[in-house]
Amino acid sequence: MDAKVSGSLNALDATAIVRKIAAGETTCEAVTRDCLVRIAERDGVVKAWVNFDPELALAQARALDHATHRGPLHGVPIGVKDIIDTFDMPTEFNSPIYKGHRPPSDAACVALLRRAGAVILGKTATCEFAGMAPAETTNPHNVANTPGGSSSGSAAAVADHMVPAALGTQTGGSVLRPSSYCGIFGFKPTYNSFNKQGVKPAAESIDTIGWLARSLDDIALLTAVLRMQAPQPLPTMSSAPRIGLTRTEMWDDAQPETKAAVDGAAAALAKAGATVREVKLPEPFTGLRKIARETINFYERAACMAYEWDHHRAALSPQMRRYIENGLKTSREDYVAGWHRIEQCRALLPTVFDGLDVLLAPCAPGEAPKGLASTGDGTMQAIWTALHTPSLTLPTHRGPTNLPVGIQLVGQRYDDDRLLACARWVWQKVGAPDMIGYRA
Amino acid sequence: MDAKVSGSLNALDATAIVRKIAAGETTCEAVTRDCLVRIAERDGVVKAWVNFDPELALAQARALDHATHRGPLHGVPIGVKDIIDTFDMPTEFNSPIYKGHRPPSDAACVALLRRAGAVILGKTATCEFAGMAPAETTNPHNVANTPGGSSSGSAAAVADHMVPAALGTQTGGSVLRPSSYCGIFGFKPTYNSFNKQGVKPAAESIDTIGWLARSLDDIALLTAVLRMQAPQPLPTMSSAPRIGLTRTEMWDDAQPETKAAVDGAAAALAKAGATVREVKLPEPFTGLRKIARETINFYERAACMAYEWDHHRAALSPQMRRYIENGLKTSREDYVAGWHRIEQCRALLPTVFDGLDVLLAPCAPGEAPKGLASTGDGTMQAIWTALHTPSLTLPTHRGPTNLPVGIQLVGQRYDDDRLLACARWVWQKVGAPDMIGYRA
Repeated sequence: MDAKVSGSLNALDATAIVRKIAAGETTCEAVTRDCLVRIAERDGVVKAWVNFDPELALAQARALDHATHRGPLHGVPIGVKDIIDTFDMPTEFNSPIYKGHRPPSDAACVALLRRAGAVILGKTATCEFAGMAPAETTNPHNVANTPGGSSSGSAAAVADHMVPAALGTQTGGSVLRPSSYCGIFGFKPTYNSFNKQGVKPAAESIDTIGWLARSLDDIALLTAVLRMQAPQPLPTMSSAPRIGLTRTEMWDDAQPETKAAVDGAAAALAKAGATVREVKLPEPFTGLRKIARETINFYERAACMAYEWDHHRAALSPQMRRYIENGLKTSREDYVAGWHRIEQCRALLPTVFDGLDVLLAPCAPGEAPKGLASTGDGTMQAIWTALHTPSLTLPTHRGPTNLPVGIQLVGQRYDDDRLLACARWVWQKVGAPDMIGYRA
Repeated sequence: MDAKVSGSLNALDATAIVRKIAAGETTCEAVTRDCLVRIAERDGVVKAWVNFDPELALAQARALDHATHRGPLHGVPIGVKDIIDTFDMPTEFNSPIYKGHRPPSDAACVALLRRAGAVILGKTATCEFAGMAPAETTNPHNVANTPGGSSSGSAAAVADHMVPAALGTQTGGSVLRPSSYCGIFGFKPTYNSFNKQGVKPAAESIDTIGWLARSLDDIALLTAVLRMQAPQPLPTMSSAPRIGLTRTEMWDDAQPETKAAVDGAAAALAKAGATVREVKLPEPFTGLRKIARETINFYERAACMAYEWDHHRAALSPQMRRYIENGLKTSREDYVAGWHRIEQCRALLPTVFDGLDVLLAPCAPGEAPKGLASTGDGTMQAIWTALHTPSLTLPTHRGPTNLPVGIQLVGQRYDDDRLLACARWVWQKVGAPDMIGYRA
């Protein structure tokens, strides 16, 4: 990583921060301070942070500098999406209903990060209840464009070098899409890899905590912490990966830049020695996008928001009200039929992956859309979320207005390490390190 | 139901309460008042309730008597296990760490019950964090014996005619085991049937909300509310059920009374016209009990309690500390291998159920054990919880000291309605209505 951006430590990735602090070349406080400087410079425009208390962040960093124990993330500042509980900062879900709400404890993921020595730098802006109503966050590459959502603040803060990594959650495409729009890595592990205690549900049967970061090494480092493992280096493939080019039923919705990114990556990877063959998803996958985006989400949203619907309906956004109304009209039978279809497709995945290590798929329809009224279309990420497979955004390309365009890699369930190893190989061949994030 | 117990309305089931109130034969307030009278008489011994506020319960009932809208549970008092959030009552998880904790909102299941017109009568005692450390609750049939757990208060309150039904949760056997020990019906639906927003997780990949009640009609009525369906009558089989007698690898751990209950029920059901054949679970099921009870539970418990472990370790029970220590020693590899095994077994279920409607299995090792130091062994229920199949306790038998002994019926995933229909048939043939609950 180039440490010159903003002149300081905030541009380092977590892996480099850990190394520098361990070597005595810098301190936890200095790292946090440089992140805070960057935020002070830029957050008036980017609006990535909510409930932000620089003194609390510095106090954590200073305490770590005086601590005898050093965890694997000693001194690494982390952003936490504001649908995830923190005991020492408000957690408001971007909803006036929860203005000033202070949870009694940390979410499991936050507690595990603190145990590892992370500095919880602050809460990042989220769409209302991780749904559709956007935060005020802008895309650091162009403030007229959405950063994507619902992990909007996490993506923008990481891309803008305010923090090396941030927690997000994905129910449709809320980690991978903003990562694509903002030009960073986004990783959604296999469902149920990272414990969700203390995370406000959207659709709990598919909600998945994920990472937004500026390096694959960081994804591996951070993932090990939330899996309660010892630090793991980014895994390596022992031979060139076998890649399935999977255009999916959403291909016609892809903008030229997304088609160019996927097809261009496939060609470049084949040239670099990967086995690349086209995979057509079997018939039951047709229509899966609607089940993933609508049936499951609507029904579960209506259930999990029952309290807010009955007590605070007027304080919900029009988008959320529409969502819940749709859920109240979704029958139990359709919901169960949706799950039967998803499970039918999941059972076909070993066939889809036959002889392949990963799938290469479109990640988002194109560049980040203009305007902040919508965070874009999550359908291309959502089918994999519903299937519970791990998936990852690589920030490999740019679109017609020079905004980032990512590609998506998908692994088999529980095969996250192979996905990360393939991602490393792919990134070495088609990655453009100067694509990562926004350089002011 | 016999309305003469304790001389009053508290002995009615929910179905009868709804009918009586709709017919103008009684009021919501009168029903709640009779439940409160019973609690006042008996809870000094039974200790089923925590954070109990009779005035709050009566206020809800009076408001319902004045409401113009009538939901399907209009005026039905319900007990709520104290690991489930309520906005107007403390939620303390039976832990000093959360003494006085007031959640900002209702859990989804509680909000849906209120929407249907239920009176949230109060919070019921739970093992600490729905784990192993017992509440003070006693078994209404014999105060020297455990009521089972972790839904201890829910089971005891329902059995003692303090409330017609109560919410419980099951991660191992926390709904079905106390139902068996207390002589009531316990129903754990297919995993992910009832939304878990607002329920403190134990092991979220298997945690399931369930019902404890004194009639199968109530189970059907209450289940429809949490599924967001219109009221459903208890389903009926169009012909005699086909039943698989499944003794499982735990058969040798069964006391004579459990063996007699299962074998006796099988013989009586065959005589009554059911097809009954013995089912031997395939080889991969061997050892599943250890994965279900230990690997998955330990690992996820260590994750979801990370905050309490790091900040309040001394306030955790020795049982919980041991659990978490075991979880911290459980490797990620073993956890994932555990899931692979569970999924392998799940994929075999269509073969296990081939030509069968339900399985008949042992429910608990025997009568409720003596003493209150342990809530008994949940292994017989736990394998089905991990498999995500629906399961149900029927209070059919008694043991050597005249305490209740239930049998367990198990259905296929998403096939809950068939399970309920079979339960109805089975109950008509081998049920003993005077077995239900405790008659003081």
